[in-house]
Amino acid sequence: MIVIGELINGMYKDVGKAIANRETDVIQHLAEEQVRSGANVLDVNTGPYSKDPLDDMKWLVESIQKAVNVPLSLDSTRSDVIEVGLKLAKQRAIINSTSADDDKMAEIFSLAKRYNAQVIGLAMDRTGVPDSKEKRLELAAVIVAKAVESGLKAEDLYLDPVLLPINVAQAQAHEVLEAIRDFRLISNPAPHVVLGLSNISQGAKQRGIINRTFLAMAIANGVTAAILDPLNKELMDAMITSELILNKNIYCDSFLEAYRKK
Amino acid sequence: MIVIGELINGMYKDVGKAIANRETDVIQHLAEEQVRSGANVLDVNTGPYSKDPLDDMKWLVESIQKAVNVPLSLDSTRSDVIEVGLKLAKQRAIINSTSADDDKMAEIFSLAKRYNAQVIGLAMDRTGVPDSKEKRLELAAVIVAKAVESGLKAEDLYLDPVLLPINVAQAQAHEVLEAIRDFRLISNPAPHVVLGLSNISQGAKQRGIINRTFLAMAIANGVTAAILDPLNKELMDAMITSELILNKNIYCDSFLEAYRKK
Repeated sequence: MIVIGELINGMYKDVGKAIANRETDVIQHLAEEQVRSGANVLDVNTGPYSKDPLDDMKWLVESIQKAVNVPLSLDSTRSDVIEVGLKLAKQRAIINSTSADDDKMAEIFSLAKRYNAQVIGLAMDRTGVPDSKEKRLELAAVIVAKAVESGLKAEDLYLDPVLLPINVAQAQAHEVLEAIRDFRLISNPAPHVVLGLSNISQGAKQRGIINRTFLAMAIANGVTAAILDPLNKELMDAMITSELILNKNIYCDSFLEAYRKK
Repeated sequence: MIVIGELINGMYKDVGKAIANRETDVIQHLAEEQVRSGANVLDVNTGPYSKDPLDDMKWLVESIQKAVNVPLSLDSTRSDVIEVGLKLAKQRAIINSTSADDDKMAEIFSLAKRYNAQVIGLAMDRTGVPDSKEKRLELAAVIVAKAVESGLKAEDLYLDPVLLPINVAQAQAHEVLEAIRDFRLISNPAPHVVLGLSNISQGAKQRGIINRTFLAMAIANGVTAAILDPLNKELMDAMITSELILNKNIYCDSFLEAYRKK
């Protein structure tokens, strides 16, 4: 599993404030803590209140890269903001994200090709999020076809079946679980499948158990990456145990600690 | 999910003692606690140290049925011991279990037919437990065919892919997860698929998280019943949440409590 740490996002109050005030230590601490807790990649998002997303992205990427040495997931709806990050990235970056809309894909895949980046592709388009696994698969297949046509490899895509909050779209959780299986069969080698995990429990009261139970179920179905909070120990324990069950780590009595020492 | 409470089993020291000394209150308390915690069925096993399994089974079934009104899973390697329970059972019983061996199936299916019982069928035979999902499927299909030939219905079978301890057969956990999906497709209406959940963590140190994570993954793959400890609250929480995610209970903020009040 590729763990993409979600915490460096200006939508969180403290992070938004740290970005506005250029508090390097706050951002670097968040970067270090996430990596120490098991994040393989860090998501970077200037947030909805950023007054200068271009300069904020530049400052964030520079600050983070002085503290940790992991790939970044450059998260913005604006491709010029993403490009600022791509120019500075020391490791191969992930662009977060494109939809299945033609113009968006053209723009994002061209950036990805130019900077040798990977891409998160959301199985949705301007008409919205599909309400079945079949429609999700259709859009995911469109994304893979367009990416390959643009000179990218399917295995450099992270297809996202788009998880919705369970308290408003309960039936969709099962559709997403089944879509994960379908997405992995689109091509060989298979594309990655990624989840924006926290979405499922937006607005719910018992967020922790919903997130970690869904993650175990998604891992059973073959998900290969998730954007999540790596500082949540119970969530990471569930992830480590799910991977143990799929035989991806070798069993020992202290498998949780052993994983963390790696 | 059908929860089969596993605690009335003479292999547990206190239960073995209660059986030997005919401590009715101990057994009835265990029955009541399991049902209160969410067991839909109670497994009844006289245990390996029983001196008179026929009389012990008779006493157990009578004692349990005075306390609770749920179906019983009559768990013994001896069909005469099972028959004692079948004769007394007030609700439709489950026979636990047959293997895929011809002579065993003939014996058990004939009992099931006579007493209108359901049957747990283990995907194993005298040569042992299969080491792949394909071989598990082969044996499960043999059981379904033989059951139907004997006049039983496929949907009255509980097929068990046979879970092994993760600390000695780690690769088998994934095979079992995939076998669950395959078993559900053997017939239409589908047979039940049941797990002896606690087996996966036999001898392991962190039993709780292994059991509950595996259960969530198994539910994602369509398991419909499990023999487990319903008094383990974290395990039951994981089960309730997994079913919520599969849209089998309606979401509300207090879904865990709501399930328990049902």
